[in-house]
Amino acid sequence: MVLSGVLVAIACVQHLHDTQTHLPFAIEVIGFADEEGVRYQSTYLGSKALAGTFNEEDLKRTDAKGIPMADAIRGFGGDLEAIANARLDPKRLLGYAEVHIEQGPVLEEKNLAVGVVTAIAGQSRMKVTFTGRAGHAGTTPMNMRRDALCAAAEFLLDAELLAKNQDGLVATVGEITALPGASNVIAGEVRLSLDLRHADDRVRQAAVAELENRAAAVAAERNVSLQWQHVHQSAAVTCDPQLSAMLSDAVKRRQQEVVSLPSGAGHDAAAMAAITPVTMLFVRCKGGISHHPDESAALEDVRVAIEVMNEFINLLVGAGSP
Amino acid sequence: MVLSGVLVAIACVQHLHDTQTHLPFAIEVIGFADEEGVRYQSTYLGSKALAGTFNEEDLKRTDAKGIPMADAIRGFGGDLEAIANARLDPKRLLGYAEVHIEQGPVLEEKNLAVGVVTAIAGQSRMKVTFTGRAGHAGTTPMNMRRDALCAAAEFLLDAELLAKNQDGLVATVGEITALPGASNVIAGEVRLSLDLRHADDRVRQAAVAELENRAAAVAAERNVSLQWQHVHQSAAVTCDPQLSAMLSDAVKRRQQEVVSLPSGAGHDAAAMAAITPVTMLFVRCKGGISHHPDESAALEDVRVAIEVMNEFINLLVGAGSP
Repeated sequence: MVLSGVLVAIACVQHLHDTQTHLPFAIEVIGFADEEGVRYQSTYLGSKALAGTFNEEDLKRTDAKGIPMADAIRGFGGDLEAIANARLDPKRLLGYAEVHIEQGPVLEEKNLAVGVVTAIAGQSRMKVTFTGRAGHAGTTPMNMRRDALCAAAEFLLDAELLAKNQDGLVATVGEITALPGASNVIAGEVRLSLDLRHADDRVRQAAVAELENRAAAVAAERNVSLQWQHVHQSAAVTCDPQLSAMLSDAVKRRQQEVVSLPSGAGHDAAAMAAITPVTMLFVRCKGGISHHPDESAALEDVRVAIEVMNEFINLLVGAGSP
Repeated sequence: MVLSGVLVAIACVQHLHDTQTHLPFAIEVIGFADEEGVRYQSTYLGSKALAGTFNEEDLKRTDAKGIPMADAIRGFGGDLEAIANARLDPKRLLGYAEVHIEQGPVLEEKNLAVGVVTAIAGQSRMKVTFTGRAGHAGTTPMNMRRDALCAAAEFLLDAELLAKNQDGLVATVGEITALPGASNVIAGEVRLSLDLRHADDRVRQAAVAELENRAAAVAAERNVSLQWQHVHQSAAVTCDPQLSAMLSDAVKRRQQEVVSLPSGAGHDAAAMAAITPVTMLFVRCKGGISHHPDESAALEDVRVAIEVMNEFINLLVGAGSP
């Protein structure tokens, strides 16, 4: 999905070339590395370097195979010394615009090619561990068990229920490991990931607190212990009202309705917002599916995105910026 | 735990030597290979060979690394050709006696060193797979999810509840895998093991049927699909009333109370019952814990077990067998 966003930007520059348009400001096209952060549980690696918010401590983080991030970057041909120098000077920036597939179902439901992002949801990622007691699956009576997997199951259904009852909140347990992990042994320890997101930080933080309480209550009821570890947290980021109004104008010229919607996913725009105003355009995607082989956006919709961004550049020029 | 059972048998033979006792029948001490069957999801490998119920097809089963059982046996120095010849002649057998730690909490609760096993519970092992749809953890609204892990969680709590409400039934989910298994992706597929045991085969089979229905209902409610696969099934085995009465007499001479109890775990005695009457003595273990580093039996209790088995042999001789 990052790919189509980068290609739209390149197409816009191509259009400027083709029409021999000279702008009063420079355009830079950026393809950021490792926005997702799955390998090191650390997001926005590339954009944080440009925003000057890259944490050098993160270089020591290790992946599942024990490889430190520093080694992974070097192995990829990267230069660790260059990270500190990558920071952009905020005074020289007009703003940051990003095009991304929606990764959700809203635009498809409304039958619209593109939409304007209002805010990027804040995220909390936790590692939750329930520790009970392993035991023989055949000989330990049900009432004497301290089954860590049953505790985890109860907790993750609580997280689902809480999110279902809170508008705009999403809660996901995507990783789970039961130890020792044999069919004839009661799980003595279960580790799971918990991902919570909302466009309003207070709502998200209240949900984190509520679920930590729930996890503690489940653990206490089942006589298992709980470890609750905050892995990652990012505040919600609001898109710049002026840039977004201009982007909405550009959309209006291509499509009857302008839909503004929050982004449940994190984006490099969230990191770039630390040093410059940001705006984002969403492109409809098939079935709202992403992070999956079925992820897909229609060529026609990408064409609309290119035209909207061309128009956005025109409006920027017309507004006399900078 | 198999170890202490084998050592008790060796100690009994040692006692016969020490007392220069000559029996009217032979005693064979057997240490069976791979009773548990964790590696190949196939139990009683050694005892099945002696009972003549070893299934040659099992040699083709592969472990998690893709190594066939035949290769594993050869690598261990085993001779595949010898398996078929290992079968014992039932006509030449008086019976089979096994000593094992209880692996459960009953004897400890009653403060008794040993107990007599009435029956070995039947087992059903299933592989259960829920397939929903993977999706982005941030952008897929809760009401549009088809989360395979939430379905699995609901199901495994149903299994726990059913077993809690049925005397003597145990249900265990010890293995669980969520795919693709990333913190920011909704689980599209979850595979879990289900282990059900009861001393009465009808109760167990009714529970299997009930849980398959529950799994189907959970899957239907959540718009995910279900795959229900029977991996292993073994019928309950009743210990021989005559041998067990004799074993109870032997226990009576060492301990005030004789407790008879079913075994929730499978034992090689279950395989041996195919060709000869079987009896089993349970030894108290610490906290009922087994299949865990904390597994432990007191030396004094093992001493009681040795004395009981010595007495059992005396009673067999006195009964004029064979």
